[in-house]
Amino acid sequence: VTSHELVGQRLAEEAARMASLGWMRGTAGNLSEVLVHNPLRLVITASGIDKGELTSRDVVEVDATGAPVADSMHRPSAEAGLHCRIALLTGAGAIVHTHPVEAVVASRRFPDGVVVDNLEMLKGIGRAASGERVTIPVIANSQDMVELGDRLEAAWTTAVPAVIVADHGLYAWGSDLRQARHHTEIVQWLLNFTVLSNS
Amino acid sequence: VTSHELVGQRLAEEAARMASLGWMRGTAGNLSEVLVHNPLRLVITASGIDKGELTSRDVVEVDATGAPVADSMHRPSAEAGLHCRIALLTGAGAIVHTHPVEAVVASRRFPDGVVVDNLEMLKGIGRAASGERVTIPVIANSQDMVELGDRLEAAWTTAVPAVIVADHGLYAWGSDLRQARHHTEIVQWLLNFTVLSNS
Amino acid sequence: VTSHELVGQRLAEEAARMASLGWMRGTAGNLSEVLVHNPLRLVITASGIDKGELTSRDVVEVDATGAPVADSMHRPSAEAGLHCRIALLTGAGAIVHTHPVEAVVASRRFPDGVVVDNLEMLKGIGRAASGERVTIPVIANSQDMVELGDRLEAAWTTAVPAVIVADHGLYAWGSDLRQARHHTEIVQWLLNFTVLSNS
Amino acid sequence: VTSHELVGQRLAEEAARMASLGWMRGTAGNLSEVLVHNPLRLVITASGIDKGELTSRDVVEVDATGAPVADSMHRPSAEAGLHCRIALLTGAGAIVHTHPVEAVVASRRFPDGVVVDNLEMLKGIGRAASGERVTIPVIANSQDMVELGDRLEAAWTTAVPAVIVADHGLYAWGSDLRQARHHTEIVQWLLNFTVLSNS
Repeated sequence: VTSHELVGQRLAEEAARMASLGWMRGTAGNLSEVLVHNPLRLVITASGIDKGELTSRDVVEVDATGAPVADSMHRPSAEAGLHCRIALLTGAGAIVHTHPVEAVVASRRFPDGVVVDNLEMLKGIGRAASGERVTIPVIANSQDMVELGDRLEAAWTTAVPAVIVADHGLYAWGSDLRQARHHTEIVQWLLNFTVLSNS
Repeated sequence: VTSHELVGQRLAEEAARMASLGWMRGTAGNLSEVLVHNPLRLVITASGIDKGELTSRDVVEVDATGAPVADSMHRPSAEAGLHCRIALLTGAGAIVHTHPVEAVVASRRFPDGVVVDNLEMLKGIGRAASGERVTIPVIANSQDMVELGDRLEAAWTTAVPAVIVADHGLYAWGSDLRQARHHTEIVQWLLNFTVLSNS
Repeated sequence: VTSHELVGQRLAEEAARMASLGWMRGTAGNLSEVLVHNPLRLVITASGIDKGELTSRDVVEVDATGAPVADSMHRPSAEAGLHCRIALLTGAGAIVHTHPVEAVVASRRFPDGVVVDNLEMLKGIGRAASGERVTIPVIANSQDMVELGDRLEAAWTTAVPAVIVADHGLYAWGSDLRQARHHTEIVQWLLNFTVLSNS
Repeated sequence: VTSHELVGQRLAEEAARMASLGWMRGTAGNLSEVLVHNPLRLVITASGIDKGELTSRDVVEVDATGAPVADSMHRPSAEAGLHCRIALLTGAGAIVHTHPVEAVVASRRFPDGVVVDNLEMLKGIGRAASGERVTIPVIANSQDMVELGDRLEAAWTTAVPAVIVADHGLYAWGSDLRQARHHTEIVQWLLNFTVLSNS
């Protein structure tokens, strides 16, 4: 078993977990784990496969541009370039991209960012439980990964390990895959709370 | 194991999956897979059985009119004729019919069709993520499968692999059963989004 | 294995299923199956046990008054008398009592009965999919099983195999346990629809 | 297998159950069981671990101040002191702390306490199904466990085995872990009902 396959196994299990929560309907969403930061090598889930049915082989290793580093039976996710950009920008070790309905509803109601404060759950992303206004950035969607990366770079702050792509979904990241999962769950909780509070 | 039984196995597994999502309460819903398009032979789930408890034998092979091609211990779903009509009309290889609450709520709010645009999820049914208004057709319900088929034929477009039957549920299809699942999930996501956005 | 234990096994499995749907929180809810109608003998789940953790022995056989017919390590559900009343009144072979949030919300909004029509799902309880107004009866709650039974008898019709107890939950029944499950699921779907449509 | 490990096993299983219900996203929430009341010894889940992945060893034994009684590879939950306070105050044998979205939404809408009455589910926490107004206390959040404990002591009554911490989550307790689970489920049902009724 190679390191590459171990990463594939972890990504497949995490993908199945996220799919079971309803956050990766169809073949939506993708996950990645950084092998090495400099020069960047990242393993990302393959394009077009049901995230509840991934195997450890349904992943592709890509370079800093999101291009496969070797022949592969799979294409990397079309959003590989954005995963790379996030890894380089934030130093994240893993990135989770999901499509929860509530994230998209929130992005339409709050296109300038979702502001939350005075919530214990904020501690789960390293923020204070009170006395701090936190903005979860919202960026406009694009099919151009460079443009989307530029927007993410402009909107991103170290205060929040996540960015909402309007009309699209959520990117969240962490030092490793488990922390990326937890950040995904926390931010999704904050968005559920926001949507439910305002309905 | 015959080809017929293999199809039954796939339909039973997919039915259990859809049932676990809450989209086939009671004995509602049905699924089919095309064996051959010309002349049409289609395998469809049997009538009146809990979709979480189907076995590979709880299916019936029908001809282009929805009539069983051989003696069977089961009756085909009453909607077999509509499945056949969809297969002939669209060239689909598999058809999934579900009863999600949100689809029916959406059909009452938007009886002329559910319009969605600027959503990344639209790519999951082959549409553009922006700049394209997409209408998920809504047709009036009927107990007459010929009438329902006529309405579906009149409302259907190649732009969307799904039709909502008002006060009833959702039909979605794809080239194979997995794609029909994905189209079901994507359209259901779009309807959830629509209902949640407007509440 | 006695017949009594086989019934216990079926009730335990069905209880776990209903609990997993969130309809039996705490130790709420109870299920019963009729052994013989005349004179009535009914097996009902025991009082005070988590419905996700029942075993085939956590049931009690009762007579037409809801009293245990033999020494038992368990007390029957406090609502055994109402189960008996429903069995005698409707001829049902099995009865399922759940506490879904939506049923209670609906009972407060529509204390005179929840009216539904033009819904395909109505066929699942033997009603027409269109052209028929169907009222799911709502009766006032009581801790007196005779009073509750009298209200149920006065409100019940053959048109609907279910009654909502206001501020309390749902009773649904069928010829056997599987049909009682399906009627529970269908009526719960109708109530979910009603609550979501009006929010 | 020591008594300590048996408790750890029970806490791990209950944590996984609560996590699967969505009430412990990220690493949120914690559970404890009292070993002895006087002098208090309590076993509590460790800080910072995914509640769906706890093992029987991921717990810490603490004294009445919430401090570990022996070297441990884990830190106790930061809220151990509050668990101890609740155990001493109420005589509870087990305490469950969760972060359900609905509890936090309810705390914002009803900062002076969530009033419920005329609901059968109230019997699940030992209250009357009718004729009794029940207030689920809401206390302001704090990062100081002594302050939070003082607020809980001031707000707590014997009528309700639970307190909502505003902007934070729910504490519920019982004579043992199973009853603490049931009280958690019942109060959460009451809060779901309250939020859904008012939306």
